[in-house]
Amino acid sequence: MTTSQPSARSSAAQALRAALESPGLARAMGAHNPLSARLAEEVGFDVIWSSGLEISAAAGVPDANILAMPECLEAAAGLANAVDLPVLADCDSGFGNVNNVVHMVRAYESRGLAGVCIEDKRFPKLNSFVEGDQELAPLGDFAGKVRAATETRENLVVVARLEALISGKGMAEALRRAEVYERAGADALLIHSKLSEPDEVFAFREAYTGDLPVVVVPTTYHHVTVGELEERGFAMAIYANHALRSSLRAMRETLGRIMRDGTTRHVEESLASLKEIFDLQRVPQMLEQQARYEELGRDLAEAGR
Amino acid sequence: MTTSQPSARSSAAQALRAALESPGLARAMGAHNPLSARLAEEVGFDVIWSSGLEISAAAGVPDANILAMPECLEAAAGLANAVDLPVLADCDSGFGNVNNVVHMVRAYESRGLAGVCIEDKRFPKLNSFVEGDQELAPLGDFAGKVRAATETRENLVVVARLEALISGKGMAEALRRAEVYERAGADALLIHSKLSEPDEVFAFREAYTGDLPVVVVPTTYHHVTVGELEERGFAMAIYANHALRSSLRAMRETLGRIMRDGTTRHVEESLASLKEIFDLQRVPQMLEQQARYEELGRDLAEAGR
Amino acid sequence: MTTSQPSARSSAAQALRAALESPGLARAMGAHNPLSARLAEEVGFDVIWSSGLEISAAAGVPDANILAMPECLEAAAGLANAVDLPVLADCDSGFGNVNNVVHMVRAYESRGLAGVCIEDKRFPKLNSFVEGDQELAPLGDFAGKVRAATETRENLVVVARLEALISGKGMAEALRRAEVYERAGADALLIHSKLSEPDEVFAFREAYTGDLPVVVVPTTYHHVTVGELEERGFAMAIYANHALRSSLRAMRETLGRIMRDGTTRHVEESLASLKEIFDLQRVPQMLEQQARYEELGRDLAEAGR
Amino acid sequence: MTTSQPSARSSAAQALRAALESPGLARAMGAHNPLSARLAEEVGFDVIWSSGLEISAAAGVPDANILAMPECLEAAAGLANAVDLPVLADCDSGFGNVNNVVHMVRAYESRGLAGVCIEDKRFPKLNSFVEGDQELAPLGDFAGKVRAATETRENLVVVARLEALISGKGMAEALRRAEVYERAGADALLIHSKLSEPDEVFAFREAYTGDLPVVVVPTTYHHVTVGELEERGFAMAIYANHALRSSLRAMRETLGRIMRDGTTRHVEESLASLKEIFDLQRVPQMLEQQARYEELGRDLAEAGR
Repeated sequence: MTTSQPSARSSAAQALRAALESPGLARAMGAHNPLSARLAEEVGFDVIWSSGLEISAAAGVPDANILAMPECLEAAAGLANAVDLPVLADCDSGFGNVNNVVHMVRAYESRGLAGVCIEDKRFPKLNSFVEGDQELAPLGDFAGKVRAATETRENLVVVARLEALISGKGMAEALRRAEVYERAGADALLIHSKLSEPDEVFAFREAYTGDLPVVVVPTTYHHVTVGELEERGFAMAIYANHALRSSLRAMRETLGRIMRDGTTRHVEESLASLKEIFDLQRVPQMLEQQARYEELGRDLAEAGR
Repeated sequence: MTTSQPSARSSAAQALRAALESPGLARAMGAHNPLSARLAEEVGFDVIWSSGLEISAAAGVPDANILAMPECLEAAAGLANAVDLPVLADCDSGFGNVNNVVHMVRAYESRGLAGVCIEDKRFPKLNSFVEGDQELAPLGDFAGKVRAATETRENLVVVARLEALISGKGMAEALRRAEVYERAGADALLIHSKLSEPDEVFAFREAYTGDLPVVVVPTTYHHVTVGELEERGFAMAIYANHALRSSLRAMRETLGRIMRDGTTRHVEESLASLKEIFDLQRVPQMLEQQARYEELGRDLAEAGR
Repeated sequence: MTTSQPSARSSAAQALRAALESPGLARAMGAHNPLSARLAEEVGFDVIWSSGLEISAAAGVPDANILAMPECLEAAAGLANAVDLPVLADCDSGFGNVNNVVHMVRAYESRGLAGVCIEDKRFPKLNSFVEGDQELAPLGDFAGKVRAATETRENLVVVARLEALISGKGMAEALRRAEVYERAGADALLIHSKLSEPDEVFAFREAYTGDLPVVVVPTTYHHVTVGELEERGFAMAIYANHALRSSLRAMRETLGRIMRDGTTRHVEESLASLKEIFDLQRVPQMLEQQARYEELGRDLAEAGR
Repeated sequence: MTTSQPSARSSAAQALRAALESPGLARAMGAHNPLSARLAEEVGFDVIWSSGLEISAAAGVPDANILAMPECLEAAAGLANAVDLPVLADCDSGFGNVNNVVHMVRAYESRGLAGVCIEDKRFPKLNSFVEGDQELAPLGDFAGKVRAATETRENLVVVARLEALISGKGMAEALRRAEVYERAGADALLIHSKLSEPDEVFAFREAYTGDLPVVVVPTTYHHVTVGELEERGFAMAIYANHALRSSLRAMRETLGRIMRDGTTRHVEESLASLKEIFDLQRVPQMLEQQARYEELGRDLAEAGR
């Protein structure tokens, strides 16, 4: 129930900026609801990633712009309200043209997000790990969106995500686009890859000579370590879908077991307790607050007789 | 599409506070959608009232907490996004107990509202002009809510609305409660009356010796003038339902006429033009913005070859 | 608060189908909120048009896919819940590609809409009366959407809107597309024109030799009468923006007058009464229902002692 | 993306009714998002419980009517859209008075829910497992709500939940209320207990001599088995929070491990694969549908030349 206040708001963007610009590697964890965001905050992540894949999966629909901007915004704003960490929102390709990007930036900034990430694919986009149409947006179209975003925002961080390696256009195209997006005003670049080794993103990081922080998403090249990424000069790693994937596995097993066993007794010890849930819901704080204000109210009424 | 930014946000509350504390009478106009709020801003009102009656009427449901907090919040936030004026939100009796009030205050402040107004009736409340259950909340309960609201908010203005005259509890009760709500921390009082003359609210204003600004809602005592209210020391008048009422009358007549005539030709001159609509939608600004960013995008792409 | 029930639901589509197929001209009135829909129902219209222009204007944003599908859906479903008439929803160009159309059709049908209307422009679309990009969608793309819509729906009526005359592509293109959309499964055609005379739509109606009902939107050719349209064999006329336009004009005048006069006394007689509002909100029915169930509850409790 | 169609809709209520009335014990699994509902369906549960605790926990707020009706409704409708199983929605104490109950019943039925469950506590309610105010609603108030619900619905199943054992009012009160709610028209009773043994609910089941199916929620008495419950004549068991609790535990461990390890390599094998996610999102079906309609569109366009 913590809600970002005006001051917290511009400082959300500042906190994200600081995480991207600090010497070490910032670590972002993907979330699909306030509960998972709070767990990520609790164990020490620096940034929350409002993950398009996680949120669409939780909603039971493909990660292909089936969820529209207001649904993505509500989900992201819910995360921002629930934690003190800055939240970077996955905004696909910007939900349409430059007008949609301008509308989106205003909306996301006003709802307390720290940053938005837009990718250089067409609308509707398809999740980068799905085999299918991964065609890039024309360079000019996307550069116009980056510029529209950065001229519209007050403090919001704008991350430009490069899909050239995903779409098979190659390193030269990735680097060319990186430069254009930098000139367009982007605050950071996200270089995406679906190889099982990090070579491609390492090569990009080495060849890119601009000044922007570079972000990676080590989903498929999962052997990579924080140390390796830090050493090569990456600014942030986003673990973009692990909360959802651990949740899915656990639920599938637990629910199957309950069905087969005809009782929950055998799964009890693999479950969080009710107390853990209540604590994450901030129930103790609510009860305290209620007792306090009800007493203050009685005192005020008494004094008013 | 104007969206309050962080700075605009705390200044929304400041602007409302200034309106309430300035020597003259501030004038607030009720709105039920962004369009009506923009019209009120355009003709010079100082404050927008996010009217529970107008919003529930537009939604086709009774003004009796049939619309829940999230629906009232969305409507109010829509107004705040659409205008530069501060928006004061009608929050009925606070949507539940002190916990709901705390949740509400955080939510309304984070969405850019300038202030909230809560009334000392029970949940669910009934519109004050409807004959029916208008029972007051116990004094202690409501005082606790006022205190909870004022300790929770950062800058948000908290207006305590007195329903003692509506509920038939009389002037002494209104004054006693006014003092308690002042001690509980309210920023302003709203004294409500459904008489056809302003005598009752004049009497309250004269008898109330506290320091808070006093707000009135001249719906039934509609002969009263700004000059008369100013002279007696009121801080603000809220015209709480006139946008909706003028809209309803006009639509009823126009739609009836079109049906009877079998053509719109006879009503054309009583209609706003499409150009008026487009201007209020900010279409020209959007087209300009689109042309600008598409051109910038092309230039950036060109330079990147 | 009337809510379409399952049975009412398939009958919503049936009622729209009947209106389109009956010998006379059906008349649809545009609405932007449940209140305006109820007024249209009250004066005798046959169908409610969930108008994209009205809804975006009420929301203060351009009619250019700034509002996303969930916002259009909520607005349309709100109308369907508020009236017994069938509601035909303006769905722009279908909010994306065929996947978005499939998602949209399921969502609109499940929320009680009688029909959807999709137009053969690109995403994001621009209001047809605005000078700007009115480029048509490739024929195959749109034909695929029509087929996707008609194979997905259970009963929902699918109207294909032809923008060839708006986009300057001419009559031959309009007719060619009409045939393709008919083969793709459309239930009706909407031929759109922005001329000040109805000649163009008359010519289309005469030249079109297919079997589908043809719908018109006499916004700019406002001299046309029901008799003239009926005589030429049109199935339905949609008065697509008149509720909003009469509302806007009345609010602008009334609010200006209140500001200038410093009192509402001079506008009172041009306003709907509170009683009119309460009646449209169904307040009397609510109070009756409340009294009834509270009494029944007391009786049941009494009998349970 | 499966959406209940009109016919599916009344049959949702019928399926729930059948589950409650069939000779064996029906098993319901709580869900907090469409993904968890699909997993429950997949492993063979009969009914989905739209769990107030799970949904509020996922949202990071206490289970104490902090989420309002529209938020609970959206969550529940999301489940109903995602599965073919009937969904029974936890509706707390009905969100207010009889008017709110009538509004709620219409809304839930129109959104495809199979049933609603309302409990005989006051508004705002507090989760039954939390130590705090668990005061019962006056008998007449709640009986009026049950009657209002059952007279308003078309097919929707109305479950009356007895909190007498939770609130410490004892068995006699539980039984007295059971009879009254039965006369008020309830379709089923839910007897709630927070003891660690099922004795209390067994005693209720034995002492209750009415005709309604009786539902239990074996959260604290988790040793009980399907066989034991079936034998004693219960109609349904709801596993009300196990999906969330298994999810929470898994995410807490996985996220902690990733933070400590500085890599995801050690957790990979405890995660669901991307393919599992895509399958649950119905990505393959979407790609097939897209290819199909794009091809049909091309063919239709070709034929139209």
